[in-house]
Amino acid sequence: MTFDAGTWLSAMRRGDRATIGRALSLVESTRPEDRARARALLDAAGPERTDVHRIGVTGPPGVGKSTLIDVLGMRLLDRGHKVAVLAVDPSSERSGGSILGDKTRMTRLGKDPRAFVRPSPSRGALGGVARRTRDAMRLLEGIGYDRIFVETVGVGQSETLVAQLTDTVLGLLSPGVGDGLQGVKRGLLEWVDVVAVTHADGAMRGAAQRTRREFRAALGLFGARDDGWIPPVCAVSAVEGDGVDELCDRIEAHFEHLVGEGRLEARRAEQRVRWMWHLIESGLLAGLRGRPGLAARVAAWERAVGQGEEAPETVAESVVEACLEGLERSVGSDT
Amino acid sequence: MTFDAGTWLSAMRRGDRATIGRALSLVESTRPEDRARARALLDAAGPERTDVHRIGVTGPPGVGKSTLIDVLGMRLLDRGHKVAVLAVDPSSERSGGSILGDKTRMTRLGKDPRAFVRPSPSRGALGGVARRTRDAMRLLEGIGYDRIFVETVGVGQSETLVAQLTDTVLGLLSPGVGDGLQGVKRGLLEWVDVVAVTHADGAMRGAAQRTRREFRAALGLFGARDDGWIPPVCAVSAVEGDGVDELCDRIEAHFEHLVGEGRLEARRAEQRVRWMWHLIESGLLAGLRGRPGLAARVAAWERAVGQGEEAPETVAESVVEACLEGLERSVGSDT
Repeated sequence: MTFDAGTWLSAMRRGDRATIGRALSLVESTRPEDRARARALLDAAGPERTDVHRIGVTGPPGVGKSTLIDVLGMRLLDRGHKVAVLAVDPSSERSGGSILGDKTRMTRLGKDPRAFVRPSPSRGALGGVARRTRDAMRLLEGIGYDRIFVETVGVGQSETLVAQLTDTVLGLLSPGVGDGLQGVKRGLLEWVDVVAVTHADGAMRGAAQRTRREFRAALGLFGARDDGWIPPVCAVSAVEGDGVDELCDRIEAHFEHLVGEGRLEARRAEQRVRWMWHLIESGLLAGLRGRPGLAARVAAWERAVGQGEEAPETVAESVVEACLEGLERSVGSDT
Repeated sequence: MTFDAGTWLSAMRRGDRATIGRALSLVESTRPEDRARARALLDAAGPERTDVHRIGVTGPPGVGKSTLIDVLGMRLLDRGHKVAVLAVDPSSERSGGSILGDKTRMTRLGKDPRAFVRPSPSRGALGGVARRTRDAMRLLEGIGYDRIFVETVGVGQSETLVAQLTDTVLGLLSPGVGDGLQGVKRGLLEWVDVVAVTHADGAMRGAAQRTRREFRAALGLFGARDDGWIPPVCAVSAVEGDGVDELCDRIEAHFEHLVGEGRLEARRAEQRVRWMWHLIESGLLAGLRGRPGLAARVAAWERAVGQGEEAPETVAESVVEACLEGLERSVGSDT
């Protein structure tokens, strides 16, 4: 099918999965012609929808993110939602390989016609991953998916990234996490809206309940957030299904809490502004390195600074000054 | 004493600790007049010295960084070196409080006239901390300190930061770290040149030796690095002194390895270039937000994007374009 944004979108809205896959590939691509088409699709897909719930799922490798999303997703389908899953995997860029793995393990959701599961693209810088994920979410929203999971491995910047991309962050913990995880806990406490202790079955059931109590206590110290939300802590078994409905309710409750007093609009607005800054930052750095008119000069600066002939401070100041003057000129010119 | 770079420097070189303290405060300050004086001091202090060993020390809170630096520092003094210690604490910016604590616990080194210990400034963005630390190191080098420890709490970006500021990164581990620390281990494996398991005494001795073996095995999987260095793993007791000399030798050995075939120059050169990029990035973002000629317009963009009247992509593209054109113009003009 040759590319036409309108035609593709209606095919996607009719549930043509091949076209959805092709469209997501366009969005994931960095080739200029693909970018242009992706932009056309996004424009045609319409504005952000505030009836769509973007759910980030984070946690260390092995905690059971995919398995739990599989179960939660099925519950949401039963509740009449259209569910999509995206994977954010910053590790793929550093290591070349993917921590989450290229094929997902969502055995039921992956087969269900009412759901769409997109495995993680196997490469791409963190910023690239963020851009792709943002665009992919908007595309899936634009064709009717109203519950979108973003699965990310809880390492490095990815936790803060997913908090900047989604409405609700679900943080997963394994039972019996020791003191060694204090750091992760601090990270989680900063970012999560709902906490779930996984593997709450069989031999682990007791440990899971202990971890749940520990975590409740830890969160209790913080009390309610400025917006009045106290992150609930659940214990859940993806295998036996215990706690899945409760967790599902908690997640939906957070969405209602956001929608409640215009908090969702506020959060999305803040995310758009952060996103603008992210694009400015990455665009400037990419341009400084990649622009034909600059590349040679920048390379010369790098050599001079590397060899100690120029101070990093001196070069940086002149670059910054020239850029900002250029912007001032263009801003002045159109006022 | 009124400010004069030359006078101050000779006083500092004579070991006038009050002036050293005042100079470091200038370097830590963000007030423009202080920055100018700090720059004058740094210029007068001369170029980077490659006979100075910059040693980063990282590890989770409670692993015993300060205590170990205290002992290692005393050993290096006995070996005829002049030792200085700086603390990098990115946590101070996020939390407003300091994980490392404002006063250091280096009871012996802190009192020794041959050493200079600078506690962590209690505030400042990560970039700010990096800038201050870099300048402080150069200042201390310029007045004759040739072994400089940079202590940082092993959280978030600070590990990678210290790797970008120092020649040798010493990574500390507590005995018996569980699976919970896999994440930290991966981080450490990426950045450390020498690993030490602390608290290798009393009841912990056995656990420390186990952790040492575990870690040797883990590092063994990676084999030697491209530059032929295999990070050694030591077990050390700051209290009883066991393993301190060995650790000291390993650290010095890494420095000799770097000096060996011009690797130190290469590493420092790479660090200067990274530093230039860091300054460009932070300078551009600070300027975009702070410049009188731009602040109002940028605020308007943020409003429009927040309210959804403008797409983040559109604003970002025009900002980036104007900046890069400005730079191209100035580059073109002086060719």
